[in-house]
Order: sequence, then structure tokens, then C-alpha cells
Amino acid sequence: MSSSDTHPVVGVVGAGQLARMTQQAAIALGIELRVLAGSTTESAARVISDVRLGDHTDLATLRDFAKGCDVVTFDHEHVPNAHIKALARDGVTVRPGADALVHAQDKAAMRERLTALGVPCPAWRRIASAAEAERFAADHGGPVVLKAARGGYDGRGVWVRENPREAAAEAERVLAGGVPLIAEEHVPFQRELAVLVARSPHRQGVAYPVVETVQRDGICVEVLAPAPDLDPETAAVAQSIGLRIAEGLDVTGVMAVEMFQTDGGLLVNELAMRPHNSGHWTIEGARTSQFEQHLRAVLDLPLGSPAQTAPVVVMANVLGGEDPDVHSRYEHVMAHDPGVKVHFYGKEVRPGRKIGHVTALGDDLETVRARARHAAVYLSEGIYV
Amino acid sequence: MSSSDTHPVVGVVGAGQLARMTQQAAIALGIELRVLAGSTTESAARVISDVRLGDHTDLATLRDFAKGCDVVTFDHEHVPNAHIKALARDGVTVRPGADALVHAQDKAAMRERLTALGVPCPAWRRIASAAEAERFAADHGGPVVLKAARGGYDGRGVWVRENPREAAAEAERVLAGGVPLIAEEHVPFQRELAVLVARSPHRQGVAYPVVETVQRDGICVEVLAPAPDLDPETAAVAQSIGLRIAEGLDVTGVMAVEMFQTDGGLLVNELAMRPHNSGHWTIEGARTSQFEQHLRAVLDLPLGSPAQTAPVVVMANVLGGEDPDVHSRYEHVMAHDPGVKVHFYGKEVRPGRKIGHVTALGDDLETVRARARHAAVYLSEGIYV
Repeated sequence: MSSSDTHPVVGVVGAGQLARMTQQAAIALGIELRVLAGSTTESAARVISDVRLGDHTDLATLRDFAKGCDVVTFDHEHVPNAHIKALARDGVTVRPGADALVHAQDKAAMRERLTALGVPCPAWRRIASAAEAERFAADHGGPVVLKAARGGYDGRGVWVRENPREAAAEAERVLAGGVPLIAEEHVPFQRELAVLVARSPHRQGVAYPVVETVQRDGICVEVLAPAPDLDPETAAVAQSIGLRIAEGLDVTGVMAVEMFQTDGGLLVNELAMRPHNSGHWTIEGARTSQFEQHLRAVLDLPLGSPAQTAPVVVMANVLGGEDPDVHSRYEHVMAHDPGVKVHFYGKEVRPGRKIGHVTALGDDLETVRARARHAAVYLSEGIYV
Repeated sequence: MSSSDTHPVVGVVGAGQLARMTQQAAIALGIELRVLAGSTTESAARVISDVRLGDHTDLATLRDFAKGCDVVTFDHEHVPNAHIKALARDGVTVRPGADALVHAQDKAAMRERLTALGVPCPAWRRIASAAEAERFAADHGGPVVLKAARGGYDGRGVWVRENPREAAAEAERVLAGGVPLIAEEHVPFQRELAVLVARSPHRQGVAYPVVETVQRDGICVEVLAPAPDLDPETAAVAQSIGLRIAEGLDVTGVMAVEMFQTDGGLLVNELAMRPHNSGHWTIEGARTSQFEQHLRAVLDLPLGSPAQTAPVVVMANVLGGEDPDVHSRYEHVMAHDPGVKVHFYGKEVRPGRKIGHVTALGDDLETVRARARHAAVYLSEGIYV
């Protein structure tokens, strides 16, 4: 490196598809990305020059990794919070910081803090015994949702049980495995929404248009931007909740807030303090992608415009099937629709695994949605109906 | 690599900003990019995992480089044509091929072929002596343009001389250096236009909207897409010229055709058979960027939509100044205009060197152009007037 090299170095712990797509934004801004990967074949490790191999749960590895980084950030929530605190004590700039990130790592801590902030959440409580689960379920009636407070994602670590007896049995089983547990009322929602916000150390905040997320078996399959027919007041409330949480939790970086839209209003479901699947549509669909926005936020640069680039944007996830050769299916998808954007993560194809996504943009929801779905289903080896 | 790795490998000879921006498109499509670089600090070498170091004029190096590539393509025109032919004889898929590429490497070959195809060009001839230059200048009146047939770019290798005597003197000097020369009439043009086309081995072709390129001192400073107030007939003629050249020369990949708009119609000025500065606006401004399009074309995938994503798109180049620390100026630019897109090439900053570009999008030409210019001039350390 010559002495004239003044570009910032951003270290990303984790080398999944989020770090991979962050590299596209880093290339444009002349930011050098460094990733901590478990292996050289991980999604981001294939497309970044500066790959360090190591275990993200090992403090010495993290300390080595952080050397020379202007800021350290994350591709996932699995770095022990105490290690993040230790890095900060070393003088490493970590964004988001440990005190913010804990709310994306621990659902009980998240629920406690959001409740204290007055953010609307489903009824909930920490569950330390089968009896507590049984009582919570009895108190709230209907099905109850048990969640591992730590470590769950994409529907894993979530159990819906129909009645107090079944809730108690499940809680007993999970607690016996040493997994901390919370219970939440099962919310009869109309649909799921998500709002992506960004906040910088300067305390600048921006909120993206509110989107609808469509889930199947606990996995997000489609994102519709903006959320169709969402009344402007509810959209404003959702954005305001997102910004309030970002400010209240001192978040630096982007944060996705997943919500339920119910007859009684919005309830916060989950938080992610990093670029998130519900924001992949922003790559082509917003003036500033969530990946660029995250880099700008963690480097304390002025935030970019979250404006949509087209009236309707639909993102659909591509899930792995039996055939590992996704590329052989590009020809059909590209010939069928020259305007659809294909994103493939370079991950080994396994049935049901998120291996990529597609984005379609246009004016009419039904048309755009059909285009995105066609491409995603075809690439996922499904049959297009 | 696991056995399920079926992604294509594209080798790019050269590691400048074109290869760098191609990496952004390759990441999305899950294409593995390999570059042949002169050093690890070159623009693309900083952002690509698979960097091979070597001399692109050495055939053995090129042969090694090509091993394992599904297709080999180029970041520049400086690979000896005979080497490209040799690679093809080895069985390497090279796109564009040697017989096409020669027309971007040799201006005399280009003029001869375009003339044969009936493509409108300025009057021209090969110049082997001072006397020939003098006669050409006398025959055509007015200033004459002498061009090195090989090796010129960005205004280098081009000499405008006012009269036959000066043309003869310049030709004598250049020819003495062993540089092959052509002379062209000095065309009194209204403005310069460019059209970007792509063509695949399947013979699918697409043409992007015609743009106006604004040059200063022989260097492109701005690109306006679409070319303001261009009548639709002339735009269609320009696109048709581009597609005709691509077909006539059997181009595979993208090609930029630079043209003069004159009172008498369009005249072709230059060709580039690769992504080109006049197409950088397509990254955000077209549904398919020129970099993605080039990858699709050289891999013989169906081509993507060239449709503009906004009514007006303006790209402005960022030129290096005295201060190497471009990043310190991001803060102002991003705060001033949250919608402008900054692209920085990670090249060492030298006065006058193209070190990046900015793109602005919107509805009104004057506003969008002012935004792009403000950002570019500020990043170039100039004063905004």
C-alpha cells in the first residue's frame, strides 16, 4: 500500500451473503473490506481479497482480526457479547456496540428494553420452568409461542404450542437442553411488515419505506416494497417505531425491525442489527442499498437516500433444491425476463437453503410479483404455477 | 471447491477500474472473476480473490492465466492480437475474438472495415510519410487530425494540426518514432454521442439509449443519458450503426461506439470492445449495467434489458488532484446530496487521472447535471462554480 492509501478498512465478522453483498457497496466507495471466515469457500470469502480464517467465538482471533480495521461490524449475531465489550475496551471501534447488539442477540433482553421504551410488543415473559410456560399459556388463551432467547433464526428456535399442557411439555424439553426461553402470545396478525432504519454515530437516522414480508414455514420467501395498500399513518408509525428503537438502543448501522400488523395496531416481532433479508430489495430498489447504508453508518458518513427507485419492487428468495447447478437455469430466467435481477450467493446448494434472491421492479404489483416469483421458483427448481 | 461448484470462471486480462466494476456484477451472478494484474495494488486486484500477477504481453503468462477459465475477456486493448489468436488455437474461448478485437486495437484496420461495411466515418487515410500527411491536409482543407493507429487513449496519440505544413511536420516526427499513423479530416461536430451495444455468440444484440459525452482536453468529463434533445430518428440511426458494427465485426461482449453528430449526420469516431467510460452511467441508470451485460454476453447468456431506470442520468468523472485523501471529501458530498452515487476506483491519486466517477439520477436535466457536477468537482478538489 502506498502512503497515499487513505481508504477506510471495515472488518466484517462473518462471511455469509450479507458480507458478500456488502463487498459490492464497498467496491463502489473504495472501502477495503476484511472478513473473518470459517473457511475460504464461504459466500463472502470467495469475493473478497482480505480473508482471515478463524473462529468468531475466540477473543484472541477477534483481537487479531480487528488490528488495522477502522471499524469492526458483523455479518451475524453470533459473536459473544462479552468479546465485543472486550474489543471496545481495547480501543477497537465496534458498530453496533455490545450494549446495542445484545438486543439482537437475546430476545429476553430485547423484549425487556422495548417494553421499557414503550414500544408495542406481544405479551411475553421469561420462562424458567414448565409451570411458568403452562401458566403463561393459560393466562393468554389460544396458542403460545415459545422462543429460544438466543441462537434461533429462520424459524429455528421457535415452537408454537396449542394449549397450556403442550406448552409446558415443550418448555420442559427445551429448558432441559439448557436453552433460555421466553413465551409470547400468539398474535393473530393480518400480515408481517418490516422497516429498515439506519443510524450513525452522529445520530443521523433514516427509515426506508415499510415493506411486507411473506413467510413460508418460518422462512421469508418474498418482500413487497412498499407494503401494498398500507395506509400512510400506519407506515409512518412503523418508521417511527424503527427510528425510536434505533435511538433508544443506540444502534449504529442498519437495523431491520420485523412487525406484525394486527387489528389492534403494530407489534414488534424481531430485530436484526445488520443488513437483513427484508432489505435485499434495496440493492436495485432504493437509491442507497442497505449494504452501502450500513457502511456509511458504521463509518459515520452522512446517510444515503432511502427513496425507492421504482413504484413497486419485489424480492423473492431462491432456495436450494436437489440440483447443485443453478447456473444452468440462468438461461431460461434471463431469456424469459431481461429485466429481472439475479443474485446468487456462491453457497453450496442444499435443499431449502437460501442460496440467492431475485428482484423485479415496475409499476404494477401483480405483474412485478409474478415476475419475481417466476424467476425465484424456476431457480429454486420448483414448478411455476 | 466442492463438486457442486458449477459457477463459471471468467478471466479478465487487466485489473483496472473496468475489471473492478465487473466484480460487482460478477458477485451478483455468482460468477468467479480472475484477473491478470501487473501488481496487487491495481484497482481490480484489491477487490478480487483470484489475482494472477504477470505481463499481459507474454504468451506463456496468458496461457497459464487462461487455464480453468470458461472464457477470457479484457479490461483493455493492449494484449497483442497474435497472442489472442494463439490462445484461440489452444482451444481457449476468448471474447471478443482476435478478429473482432483488432478493430479496437488498430484504427487503420477499424477505418478500413467500417468503410467496407458502409458505416459513415470521417474522411481518412493511412499515412506513411510526411508528404502523404501534407497532401491529405491540402485535399481536405482546414485542420487535420493525426492519430496513432495503435496505443492511443484518452486524447493521447491524437494531434490536431492547422495546415498541411504543420501536419507534415507532425507526421514526420511521429513516424520517426515508429508509430503507425492515420490522418482524418477535422470534423466540425455539434456534439459527441456514444452508443453502447452488446452482442452474444447466439447473435442476440441490444443497444442502450444514445448518450452525449462531454469532453475536456480529450478526456470525457460528463455523460448525459439520454443525449438531450436528440431526435428519435437520429437516436435510432446511432443504435442501428452500433448493432451493425457489432454484427459486421462479429463482436461478442459490449462495445462502445463514439460518434460525432454533425450537420451532415453521424460519423463514427472510435470503438471500444469492452465496458467503457461512456457506459458507467448504466450501473444505476440502466436495468442492466454494462458490466453485467458484458459478462452475460461473453458467457453467451441471454442479454439483459438496457432500459433506463430514470428519465435523466448524468455521470461525471472524478479526476485526481493534489490531495490523495479523497475519502475525507466524502462527508461533504454525501451530506450535500444523499442521492448521488459515488464510485471510487481505489487507484493511487495523481493529478488529472480518472480516479472515480459519480452518478446522479432524476427528472430534470439541469438539476441532475448540477448535482453530478457538484459532486465530481468537489471530489476532484476543484472549486464548484
